[in-house]
Amino acid sequence: MAGIEEVELLGSVGSPFVIKVQIALKLKGIEYKYVEEKLGNLSETLLNHNPVYRMVPVLVHNGKPISESRVILEYIDETWKLNPILHSDPYKRALDRFWSKFIDDKCVVPAAKTIFIPDENEQEKAREELFDALQFLENELKDKFFGGEEIGFVDIAALFIPLFQEVAEKQLFTSDKFPKLHKWSQDFYNHPVVKEIMPSKEQQYAYFKARAASLAAASK
Amino acid sequence: MAGIEEVELLGSVGSPFVIKVQIALKLKGIEYKYVEEKLGNLSETLLNHNPVYRMVPVLVHNGKPISESRVILEYIDETWKLNPILHSDPYKRALDRFWSKFIDDKCVVPAAKTIFIPDENEQEKAREELFDALQFLENELKDKFFGGEEIGFVDIAALFIPLFQEVAEKQLFTSDKFPKLHKWSQDFYNHPVVKEIMPSKEQQYAYFKARAASLAAASK
Repeated sequence: MAGIEEVELLGSVGSPFVIKVQIALKLKGIEYKYVEEKLGNLSETLLNHNPVYRMVPVLVHNGKPISESRVILEYIDETWKLNPILHSDPYKRALDRFWSKFIDDKCVVPAAKTIFIPDENEQEKAREELFDALQFLENELKDKFFGGEEIGFVDIAALFIPLFQEVAEKQLFTSDKFPKLHKWSQDFYNHPVVKEIMPSKEQQYAYFKARAASLAAASK
Repeated sequence: MAGIEEVELLGSVGSPFVIKVQIALKLKGIEYKYVEEKLGNLSETLLNHNPVYRMVPVLVHNGKPISESRVILEYIDETWKLNPILHSDPYKRALDRFWSKFIDDKCVVPAAKTIFIPDENEQEKAREELFDALQFLENELKDKFFGGEEIGFVDIAALFIPLFQEVAEKQLFTSDKFPKLHKWSQDFYNHPVVKEIMPSKEQQYAYFKARAASLAAASK
Protein backbone atom coordinates (compact mmCIF):
# COMPACT_ATOMS: atom_id res chain seq x y z
CA MET A 1 0.00 0.00 0.00
CA ALA A 2 1.29 3.43 -0.92
CA GLY A 3 1.65 6.41 1.41
CA ILE A 4 2.09 6.58 5.16
CA GLU A 5 -0.24 4.31 7.10
CA GLU A 6 -1.56 5.54 10.41
CA VAL A 7 -2.69 2.62 12.50
CA GLU A 8 -3.80 3.08 16.10
CA LEU A 9 -5.27 0.52 18.47
CA LEU A 10 -7.33 1.61 21.46
CA GLY A 11 -7.16 -1.22 23.98
CA SER A 12 -6.99 -2.27 27.62
CA VAL A 13 -4.10 -4.50 28.71
CA GLY A 14 -5.36 -8.00 29.46
CA SER A 15 -8.58 -7.79 27.40
CA PRO A 16 -8.90 -10.97 25.30
CA PHE A 17 -10.73 -8.98 22.57
CA VAL A 18 -7.74 -6.64 22.32
CA ILE A 19 -5.25 -9.52 22.35
CA LYS A 20 -7.10 -10.99 19.32
CA VAL A 21 -6.51 -7.82 17.33
CA GLN A 22 -2.89 -7.55 18.48
CA ILE A 23 -2.19 -11.10 17.30
CA ALA A 24 -3.71 -10.33 13.88
CA LEU A 25 -1.65 -7.13 13.50
CA LYS A 26 1.52 -8.96 14.56
CA LEU A 27 0.88 -11.89 12.19
CA LYS A 28 0.68 -9.33 9.37
CA GLY A 29 3.73 -7.39 10.59
CA ILE A 30 1.81 -4.11 10.85
CA GLU A 31 3.30 -1.29 12.91
CA TYR A 32 0.76 0.51 15.08
CA LYS A 33 0.45 2.90 17.98
CA TYR A 34 -1.16 1.39 21.06
CA VAL A 35 -3.34 3.64 23.26
CA GLU A 36 -4.36 2.35 26.67
CA GLU A 37 -7.99 2.85 27.76
CA LYS A 38 -9.08 2.50 31.40
CA LEU A 39 -12.20 0.40 32.01
CA GLY A 40 -14.79 2.57 33.73
CA ASN A 41 -13.04 5.75 32.62
CA LEU A 42 -12.92 5.61 28.83
CA SER A 43 -11.48 8.53 26.85
CA GLU A 44 -13.58 10.95 24.79
CA THR A 45 -11.79 9.60 21.72
CA LEU A 46 -12.96 6.05 22.45
CA LEU A 47 -16.54 7.18 23.06
CA ASN A 48 -16.55 9.17 19.83
CA HIS A 49 -15.12 6.27 17.84
CA ASN A 50 -17.41 3.61 19.30
CA PRO A 51 -20.55 5.36 20.62
CA VAL A 52 -22.63 2.22 20.07
CA TYR A 53 -20.83 -0.34 22.24
CA ARG A 54 -18.48 2.01 24.16
CA MET A 55 -15.84 -0.69 24.36
CA VAL A 56 -12.31 -1.57 23.35
CA PRO A 57 -10.86 -2.63 20.99
CA VAL A 58 -11.16 0.11 18.38
CA LEU A 59 -8.79 0.11 15.44
CA VAL A 60 -8.26 3.49 13.82
CA HIS A 61 -6.81 3.28 10.31
CA ASN A 62 -5.98 6.60 8.65
CA GLY A 63 -8.52 8.29 10.91
CA LYS A 64 -11.33 5.77 10.29
CA PRO A 65 -12.52 3.82 13.35
CA ILE A 66 -13.52 0.14 13.27
CA SER A 67 -15.10 -1.66 16.25
CA GLU A 68 -16.02 -5.24 17.17
CA SER A 69 -13.12 -7.68 17.20
CA ARG A 70 -14.41 -10.06 14.50
CA VAL A 71 -15.15 -7.11 12.21
CA ILE A 72 -11.69 -5.66 12.90
CA LEU A 73 -10.01 -8.99 12.12
CA GLU A 74 -11.76 -9.25 8.75
CA TYR A 75 -10.85 -5.63 7.99
CA ILE A 76 -7.19 -6.30 8.77
CA ASP A 77 -7.21 -9.41 6.59
CA GLU A 78 -8.80 -7.59 3.63
CA THR A 79 -6.57 -4.52 3.95
CA TRP A 80 -3.18 -6.18 4.41
CA LYS A 81 -2.92 -9.32 2.30
CA LEU A 82 0.31 -10.80 3.73
CA ASN A 83 -0.17 -13.94 5.87
CA PRO A 84 -3.92 -14.47 5.36
CA ILE A 85 -6.00 -15.05 8.49
CA LEU A 86 -9.13 -16.35 6.78
CA HIS A 87 -8.97 -19.11 4.17
CA SER A 88 -9.26 -17.97 0.54
CA ASP A 89 -11.82 -20.62 -0.52
CA PRO A 90 -15.39 -19.30 0.03
CA TYR A 91 -16.59 -22.51 1.74
CA LYS A 92 -13.63 -22.58 4.12
CA ARG A 93 -14.15 -18.86 4.79
CA ALA A 94 -17.78 -19.65 5.68
CA LEU A 95 -16.55 -22.28 8.15
CA ASP A 96 -14.03 -19.78 9.58
CA ARG A 97 -16.89 -17.34 10.22
CA PHE A 98 -19.24 -20.03 11.50
CA TRP A 99 -16.84 -21.44 14.09
CA SER A 100 -15.55 -18.08 15.20
CA LYS A 101 -19.13 -16.92 15.85
CA PHE A 102 -19.84 -20.26 17.55
CA ILE A 103 -16.92 -19.70 19.93
CA ASP A 104 -18.14 -16.20 20.81
CA ASP A 105 -21.76 -17.37 21.35
CA LYS A 106 -21.38 -20.84 22.78
CA CYS A 107 -17.98 -20.94 24.50
CA VAL A 108 -17.10 -17.44 25.68
CA VAL A 109 -20.51 -16.72 27.24
CA PRO A 110 -20.72 -19.91 29.38
CA ALA A 111 -16.97 -19.79 30.18
CA ALA A 112 -17.42 -16.24 31.51
CA LYS A 113 -20.38 -17.43 33.60
CA THR A 114 -18.29 -20.16 35.24
CA ILE A 115 -15.97 -17.37 36.39
CA PHE A 116 -18.18 -14.36 37.05
CA ILE A 117 -21.44 -15.82 38.37
CA PRO A 118 -21.35 -16.54 42.10
CA ASP A 119 -24.26 -19.03 42.20
CA GLU A 120 -22.85 -22.59 42.12
CA ASN A 121 -25.83 -24.18 40.36
CA GLU A 122 -25.66 -21.59 37.60
CA GLN A 123 -21.91 -22.17 37.37
CA GLU A 124 -22.48 -25.90 36.98
CA LYS A 125 -25.09 -25.35 34.27
CA ALA A 126 -22.71 -23.04 32.41
CA ARG A 127 -19.91 -25.63 32.72
CA GLU A 128 -22.11 -28.30 31.10
CA GLU A 129 -23.04 -25.94 28.26
CA LEU A 130 -19.38 -25.13 27.76
CA PHE A 131 -18.39 -28.81 27.67
CA ASP A 132 -21.03 -29.52 25.01
CA ALA A 133 -19.66 -26.67 22.91
CA LEU A 134 -16.03 -27.69 23.41
CA GLN A 135 -16.90 -31.19 22.19
CA PHE A 136 -17.96 -29.70 18.84
CA LEU A 137 -14.66 -27.84 18.63
CA GLU A 138 -12.70 -30.96 19.62
CA ASN A 139 -14.32 -32.82 16.71
CA GLU A 140 -13.65 -29.93 14.32
CA LEU A 141 -9.92 -29.74 15.00
CA LYS A 142 -8.25 -31.71 12.18
CA ASP A 143 -4.77 -30.17 11.88
CA LYS A 144 -2.25 -28.55 14.20
CA PHE A 145 -4.35 -25.37 14.20
CA PHE A 146 -7.92 -24.66 13.10
CA GLY A 147 -6.29 -22.61 10.35
CA GLY A 148 -4.18 -25.60 9.23
CA GLU A 149 -0.41 -25.42 9.79
CA GLU A 150 -0.67 -21.75 10.73
CA ILE A 151 -2.88 -19.76 13.11
CA GLY A 152 -6.10 -18.50 11.52
CA PHE A 153 -9.41 -16.78 12.25
CA VAL A 154 -10.83 -19.60 14.41
CA ASP A 155 -7.61 -20.02 16.42
CA ILE A 156 -7.64 -16.34 17.25
CA ALA A 157 -11.29 -16.56 18.33
CA ALA A 158 -10.53 -19.63 20.44
CA LEU A 159 -7.79 -17.95 22.48
CA PHE A 160 -10.46 -17.21 25.07
CA ILE A 161 -10.64 -20.78 26.19
CA PRO A 162 -7.09 -21.41 27.43
CA LEU A 163 -7.00 -17.83 28.66
CA PHE A 164 -10.07 -18.32 30.87
CA GLN A 165 -8.65 -21.59 32.12
CA GLU A 166 -5.33 -19.96 32.92
CA VAL A 167 -6.71 -16.90 34.65
CA ALA A 168 -9.52 -18.52 36.57
CA GLU A 169 -7.42 -21.57 37.39
CA LYS A 170 -10.37 -23.76 36.44
CA GLN A 171 -10.00 -27.06 34.65
CA LEU A 172 -12.12 -26.22 31.63
CA PHE A 173 -10.38 -28.64 29.37
CA THR A 174 -8.04 -31.33 30.46
CA SER A 175 -5.89 -33.59 28.31
CA ASP A 176 -8.08 -36.64 28.91
CA LYS A 177 -11.43 -34.88 28.31
CA PHE A 178 -10.38 -32.85 25.25
CA PRO A 179 -6.98 -34.20 24.13
CA LYS A 180 -6.90 -32.36 20.78
CA LEU A 181 -7.94 -28.99 22.22
CA HIS A 182 -5.45 -29.46 25.03
CA LYS A 183 -2.60 -30.03 22.58
CA TRP A 184 -3.88 -27.13 20.46
CA SER A 185 -3.78 -24.76 23.45
CA GLN A 186 -0.14 -25.66 24.07
CA ASP A 187 0.83 -25.18 20.40
CA PHE A 188 -1.12 -21.92 20.33
CA TYR A 189 0.53 -20.53 23.46
CA ASN A 190 3.96 -21.56 22.16
CA HIS A 191 3.48 -19.84 18.80
CA PRO A 192 6.10 -17.05 18.66
CA VAL A 193 3.53 -14.32 17.81
CA VAL A 194 1.15 -15.38 20.58
CA LYS A 195 4.03 -15.65 23.05
CA GLU A 196 5.14 -12.13 22.25
CA ILE A 197 1.67 -10.60 22.47
CA MET A 198 0.20 -12.39 25.46
CA PRO A 199 0.26 -10.19 28.58
CA SER A 200 1.50 -11.61 31.87
CA LYS A 201 -0.84 -13.70 34.00
CA GLU A 202 -0.94 -10.84 36.53
CA GLN A 203 -2.05 -8.36 33.86
CA GLN A 204 -4.73 -10.73 32.61
CA TYR A 205 -5.91 -11.35 36.15
CA ALA A 206 -6.06 -7.60 36.90
CA TYR A 207 -8.13 -7.07 33.75
CA PHE A 208 -10.58 -9.82 34.66
CA LYS A 209 -10.96 -8.43 38.18
CA ALA A 210 -11.66 -4.93 36.84
CA ARG A 211 -14.10 -6.36 34.28
CA ALA A 212 -15.94 -8.38 36.95
CA ALA A 213 -16.18 -5.26 39.14
CA SER A 214 -17.55 -3.14 36.30
CA LEU A 215 -20.09 -5.86 35.40
CA ALA A 216 -21.19 -6.09 39.04
CA ALA A 217 -21.54 -2.29 39.23
CA ALA A 218 -23.57 -2.24 36.00
CA SER A 219 -25.99 -4.91 37.26
CA LYS A 220 -26.77 -3.02 40.48
CA MET B 1 -18.98 -20.80 -12.77
CA ALA B 2 -18.62 -24.01 -14.78
CA GLY B 3 -20.58 -27.23 -14.28
CA ILE B 4 -24.03 -27.82 -12.85
CA GLU B 5 -24.70 -26.00 -9.62
CA GLU B 6 -26.79 -27.75 -7.00
CA VAL B 7 -28.24 -25.22 -4.63
CA GLU B 8 -30.73 -26.21 -1.95
CA LEU B 9 -32.24 -24.10 0.80
CA LEU B 10 -33.68 -25.71 3.93
CA GLY B 11 -36.14 -23.22 5.40
CA SER B 12 -39.44 -22.64 7.17
CA VAL B 13 -41.99 -20.37 5.52
CA GLY B 14 -42.26 -17.09 7.42
CA SER B 15 -38.85 -17.28 9.15
CA PRO B 16 -37.12 -13.89 8.78
CA PHE B 17 -33.73 -15.63 8.75
CA VAL B 18 -34.84 -17.69 5.76
CA ILE B 19 -36.32 -14.66 3.99
CA LYS B 20 -32.90 -12.97 4.29
CA VAL B 21 -31.24 -15.81 2.39
CA GLN B 22 -34.04 -15.94 -0.19
CA ILE B 23 -33.65 -12.23 -0.93
CA ALA B 24 -29.89 -12.66 -1.40
CA LEU B 25 -30.36 -15.62 -3.76
CA LYS B 26 -33.00 -13.72 -5.74
CA LEU B 27 -30.86 -10.57 -5.99
CA LYS B 28 -28.14 -12.75 -7.53
CA GLY B 29 -30.58 -14.59 -9.79
CA ILE B 30 -29.58 -18.01 -8.44
CA GLU B 31 -31.90 -20.96 -9.08
CA TYR B 32 -32.36 -23.21 -6.06
CA LYS B 33 -34.51 -25.96 -4.64
CA TYR B 34 -36.48 -25.00 -1.55
CA VAL B 35 -37.09 -27.65 1.11
CA GLU B 36 -39.61 -26.88 3.84
CA GLU B 37 -38.68 -27.80 7.45
CA LYS B 38 -41.26 -28.00 10.22
CA LEU B 39 -40.39 -26.22 13.47
CA GLY B 40 -40.40 -28.80 16.28
CA ASN B 41 -40.09 -31.68 13.82
CA LEU B 42 -36.90 -31.01 11.85
CA SER B 43 -35.70 -33.54 9.28
CA GLU B 44 -32.68 -35.82 9.75
CA THR B 45 -31.05 -33.97 6.87
CA LEU B 46 -31.35 -30.64 8.69
CA LEU B 47 -29.99 -32.09 11.93
CA ASN B 48 -27.04 -33.65 10.10
CA HIS B 49 -26.28 -30.43 8.26
CA ASN B 50 -26.59 -28.15 11.29
CA PRO B 51 -26.01 -30.28 14.40
CA VAL B 52 -24.71 -27.27 16.33
CA TYR B 53 -27.69 -24.88 16.19
CA ARG B 54 -30.34 -27.30 14.80
CA MET B 55 -32.05 -24.43 12.98
CA VAL B 56 -33.03 -23.18 9.55
CA PRO B 57 -31.81 -21.72 7.27
CA VAL B 58 -29.22 -24.11 5.91
CA LEU B 59 -27.88 -23.55 2.41
CA VAL B 60 -26.48 -26.65 0.71
CA HIS B 61 -24.24 -25.88 -2.23
CA ASN B 62 -22.98 -28.89 -4.20
CA GLY B 63 -23.51 -31.05 -1.10
CA LYS B 64 -21.75 -28.68 1.32
CA PRO B 65 -23.92 -27.22 4.13
CA ILE B 66 -23.63 -23.67 5.42
CA SER B 67 -25.53 -22.38 8.46
CA GLU B 68 -26.14 -19.03 10.17
CA SER B 69 -27.79 -16.40 8.01
CA ARG B 70 -25.00 -13.80 8.08
CA VAL B 71 -22.44 -16.48 7.21
CA ILE B 72 -24.67 -17.75 4.39
CA LEU B 73 -25.07 -14.23 2.99
CA GLU B 74 -21.32 -13.66 2.86
CA TYR B 75 -20.86 -17.08 1.24
CA ILE B 76 -23.44 -16.24 -1.44
CA ASP B 77 -21.76 -12.89 -2.10
CA GLU B 78 -18.30 -14.45 -2.42
CA THR B 79 -19.47 -17.35 -4.58
CA TRP B 80 -21.72 -15.50 -7.06
CA LYS B 81 -20.26 -12.12 -7.91
CA LEU B 82 -23.21 -10.59 -9.81
CA ASN B 83 -25.05 -7.80 -7.92
CA PRO B 84 -22.75 -7.49 -4.90
CA ILE B 85 -24.44 -7.47 -1.48
CA LEU B 86 -21.47 -6.19 0.54
CA HIS B 87 -19.52 -3.12 -0.53
CA SER B 88 -16.17 -3.79 -2.22
CA ASP B 89 -14.16 -1.22 -0.21
CA PRO B 90 -12.73 -2.86 2.97
CA TYR B 91 -13.83 -0.01 5.25
CA LYS B 92 -17.38 -0.02 3.90
CA ARG B 93 -17.43 -3.82 4.20
CA ALA B 94 -16.41 -3.43 7.86
CA LEU B 95 -19.36 -1.05 8.36
CA ASP B 96 -21.67 -3.53 6.58
CA ARG B 97 -20.59 -6.23 9.04
CA PHE B 98 -20.71 -3.91 12.04
CA TRP B 99 -24.27 -2.67 11.43
CA SER B 100 -25.60 -6.04 10.44
CA LYS B 101 -24.27 -7.53 13.70
CA PHE B 102 -25.63 -4.50 15.57
CA ILE B 103 -29.12 -5.15 14.16
CA ASP B 104 -28.99 -8.80 15.21
CA ASP B 105 -27.71 -7.98 18.72
CA LYS B 106 -29.38 -4.70 19.55
CA CYS B 107 -32.59 -4.58 17.49
CA VAL B 108 -33.78 -8.14 16.87
CA VAL B 109 -33.35 -9.29 20.48
CA PRO B 110 -35.33 -6.44 22.13
CA ALA B 111 -37.89 -6.40 19.26
CA ALA B 112 -38.54 -10.10 19.86
CA LYS B 113 -38.91 -9.41 23.58
CA THR B 114 -41.59 -6.78 22.95
CA ILE B 115 -43.55 -9.52 21.19
CA PHE B 116 -42.77 -12.75 23.03
CA ILE B 117 -42.35 -11.71 26.67
CA PRO B 118 -45.69 -11.46 28.52
CA ASP B 119 -44.47 -9.22 31.38
CA GLU B 120 -45.39 -5.60 30.59
CA ASN B 121 -42.49 -4.02 32.50
CA GLU B 122 -40.01 -6.20 30.64
CA GLN B 123 -41.76 -5.31 27.39
CA GLU B 124 -41.40 -1.61 28.17
CA LYS B 125 -37.69 -2.02 28.99
CA ALA B 126 -37.15 -3.87 25.72
CA ARG B 127 -39.03 -1.16 23.80
CA GLU B 128 -36.72 1.52 25.24
CA GLU B 129 -33.63 -0.52 24.32
CA LEU B 130 -35.01 -0.97 20.82
CA PHE B 131 -35.70 2.76 20.40
CA ASP B 132 -32.13 3.61 21.48
CA ALA B 133 -30.80 1.16 18.88
CA LEU B 134 -33.14 2.39 16.14
CA GLN B 135 -31.92 5.94 16.74
CA PHE B 136 -28.40 4.81 15.82
CA LEU B 137 -29.73 3.24 12.62
CA GLU B 138 -31.81 6.34 11.82
CA ASN B 139 -28.63 8.44 12.02
CA GLU B 140 -26.69 5.94 9.91
CA LEU B 141 -29.14 5.93 6.99
CA LYS B 142 -27.72 8.37 4.43
CA ASP B 143 -29.09 7.14 1.08
CA LYS B 144 -32.24 5.43 -0.15
CA PHE B 145 -30.95 2.12 1.24
CA PHE B 146 -28.15 1.30 3.69
CA GLY B 147 -26.43 -0.25 0.65
CA GLY B 148 -26.77 3.01 -1.34
CA GLU B 149 -29.13 3.03 -4.32
CA GLU B 150 -29.55 -0.75 -4.09
CA ILE B 151 -30.35 -3.18 -1.27
CA GLY B 152 -27.24 -4.45 0.54
CA PHE B 153 -26.08 -6.50 3.54
CA VAL B 154 -27.43 -4.08 6.17
CA ASP B 155 -30.81 -3.69 4.45
CA ILE B 156 -31.24 -7.44 4.41
CA ALA B 157 -30.33 -7.64 8.12
CA ALA B 158 -32.75 -4.82 8.91
CA LEU B 159 -35.77 -6.53 7.34
CA PHE B 160 -36.59 -7.80 10.82
CA ILE B 161 -37.73 -4.42 11.98
CA PRO B 162 -40.65 -3.68 9.62
CA LEU B 163 -41.48 -7.38 9.70
CA PHE B 164 -41.85 -7.42 13.49
CA GLN B 165 -43.89 -4.25 13.31
CA GLU B 166 -46.14 -5.71 10.63
CA VAL B 167 -46.69 -9.07 12.29
CA ALA B 168 -47.04 -7.92 15.86
CA GLU B 169 -49.01 -4.85 14.85
CA LYS B 170 -46.89 -2.78 17.20
CA GLN B 171 -45.80 0.75 16.43
CA LEU B 172 -42.06 0.15 16.65
CA PHE B 173 -41.18 2.96 14.33
CA THR B 174 -43.49 5.66 13.21
CA SER B 175 -42.92 8.34 10.60
CA ASP B 176 -42.55 11.10 13.18
CA LYS B 177 -40.21 9.21 15.52
CA PHE B 178 -37.96 7.66 12.85
CA PRO B 179 -38.79 9.39 9.54
CA LYS B 180 -35.83 8.01 7.58
CA LEU B 181 -36.32 4.42 8.77
CA HIS B 182 -40.02 4.69 8.06
CA LYS B 183 -39.39 5.79 4.48
CA TRP B 184 -36.70 3.09 4.15
CA SER B 185 -39.14 0.37 5.25
CA GLN B 186 -41.59 1.45 2.52
CA ASP B 187 -38.89 1.53 -0.17
CA PHE B 188 -37.60 -1.83 1.05
CA TYR B 189 -41.03 -3.51 0.98
CA ASN B 190 -41.70 -2.06 -2.47
CA HIS B 191 -38.44 -3.36 -3.92
CA PRO B 192 -39.44 -5.91 -6.61
CA VAL B 193 -37.22 -8.69 -5.18
CA VAL B 194 -38.47 -8.17 -1.62
CA LYS B 195 -42.08 -8.02 -2.85
CA GLU B 196 -41.67 -11.30 -4.66
CA ILE B 197 -40.00 -13.11 -1.75
CA MET B 198 -41.96 -11.83 1.23
CA PRO B 199 -44.51 -14.40 2.44
CA SER B 200 -48.07 -13.33 3.19
CA LYS B 201 -48.86 -11.71 6.52
CA GLU B 202 -50.79 -14.87 7.48
CA GLN B 203 -47.75 -17.07 6.80
CA GLN B 204 -45.50 -14.74 8.78
CA TYR B 205 -47.96 -14.69 11.63
CA ALA B 206 -48.27 -18.49 11.64
CA TYR B 207 -44.47 -18.77 11.80
CA PHE B 208 -44.22 -16.34 14.70
CA LYS B 209 -46.94 -18.21 16.59
CA ALA B 210 -45.17 -21.55 16.07
CA ARG B 211 -41.85 -20.00 17.09
CA ALA B 212 -43.35 -18.49 20.25
CA ALA B 213 -44.89 -21.87 21.13
CA SER B 214 -41.60 -23.71 20.61
CA LEU B 215 -39.76 -21.08 22.70
CA ALA B 216 -42.33 -21.43 25.47
CA ALA B 217 -42.03 -25.24 25.37
CA ALA B 218 -38.22 -25.03 25.53
CA SER B 219 -38.25 -22.75 28.57
CA LYS B 220 -40.47 -25.10 30.59
